Amino acid sequence: MTVLEIRPVVGLAEIQEGDDLASLIVEAIAMDGWSLEDKDIVVVTHKVVSKQEGRIVAIPDEDTYRALVQDEAVEIIRRRGDLVIARTKHGFICANAAVDRSNVAEGFALLLPVDPDRSAHRLRNLIERATSTSIGVVITDTFGRPWRRGLVDVAIGVSGLPSIIDLVGTRDAHGNELNVTEIAIVDEIAAAADLVMGKASQIPAAVVRGLSLEGSGRIADLIRPPEEDLFR
Amino acid sequence: MTVLEIRPVVGLAEIQEGDDLASLIVEAIAMDGWSLEDKDIVVVTHKVVSKQEGRIVAIPDEDTYRALVQDEAVEIIRRRGDLVIARTKHGFICANAAVDRSNVAEGFALLLPVDPDRSAHRLRNLIERATSTSIGVVITDTFGRPWRRGLVDVAIGVSGLPSIIDLVGTRDAHGNELNVTEIAIVDEIAAAADLVMGKASQIPAAVVRGLSLEGSGRIADLIRPPEEDLFR
Repeated sequence: MTVLEIRPVVGLAEIQEGDDLASLIVEAIAMDGWSLEDKDIVVVTHKVVSKQEGRIVAIPDEDTYRALVQDEAVEIIRRRGDLVIARTKHGFICANAAVDRSNVAEGFALLLPVDPDRSAHRLRNLIERATSTSIGVVITDTFGRPWRRGLVDVAIGVSGLPSIIDLVGTRDAHGNELNVTEIAIVDEIAAAADLVMGKASQIPAAVVRGLSLEGSGRIADLIRPPEEDLFR
Repeated sequence: MTVLEIRPVVGLAEIQEGDDLASLIVEAIAMDGWSLEDKDIVVVTHKVVSKQEGRIVAIPDEDTYRALVQDEAVEIIRRRGDLVIARTKHGFICANAAVDRSNVAEGFALLLPVDPDRSAHRLRNLIERATSTSIGVVITDTFGRPWRRGLVDVAIGVSGLPSIIDLVGTRDAHGNELNVTEIAIVDEIAAAADLVMGKASQIPAAVVRGLSLEGSGRIADLIRPPEEDLFR
């Protein structure tokens, strides 16, 4: 039996702009008595990546916050009271255009990385160089969903693994072609990693071990083109 | 370090109406050389539960199929060509009112269990009795999402664990109250389990080990009330 393991990366200190996040992750893992292996997937919440990249903005008052949300949004999808559902420059549709006021000092907000795939790629290269392994990296954020209450972590950046697995042409045990063919594997990985990261537990990274995925995808693979979308 | 493990339940034969699914799962695990422990969460795709419960319907032609979708739907949310997004009797909003033609003989379709929480509860009781453990059970299905391409597994039935973890009042390291408070933990568990189940690999069950969840929820906790929903 192949057991999938999800290991929290514990002991990471608060990340500051310019920190060497890759080294900090590798050292935290070493301090905990284990090490990365080929095909491991390192999952990191965007908060630490955004902090490292200096994507932090002062918001002295609510008007500044609202202007920032407006600025990060390329399209407002819905608005009700203070809640704004917007499309970001990356194409993500989420609350407040992903401008985030938790896990940051009061009076400040975090923005998403400018190019999360590139952030993932850079982090992956640095970790691979430090550990002589071949790994994948997923950067996550926490999004709400229409129709279903509660939030889940999803992928917002990826490097070294596919975003979607396409089973088109695959047949089930009855010989039927599967009608469910495109699995958003990288979102399932993000959700799985959140089970050990938690929102309040200050664990911003985890390692998924035991998946053997071929290929490499981009986060744009997950963005549904507007013309395919029934819910705008 | 607490490692979360996700173990596939391999070797389950094709499930038939009236099968003792609980015993079959326990036996398959024993044949694979391990056994269930307290606090394990058994995740099962609805397909095997629906088959066991006889929720299988003949669909000799496309008109019968369309009539069945119409019958399972209590509200049509969107329609484009052959694609119908509908709300089921349970409150789930999904494609084709969850009427499923994969993993079933040609000319037939599977419906969701009538009361998936009750199905989960029954399965849990039978497994607990057979193994003298205290476990949780999650029943899953594969849903699409607005805005994001690819499908993910979500929970449609639950017993013995919470559906949502509410972190309201929890503070982050900066002393801010979290604004993200309700995590759909049972959907994250469903997504995580799918990583070892797969769509074509004929593994319809998995065990999540290492989560220590208190409380018990209902799947209805995940249904967003229409008046809160911006996307109908």
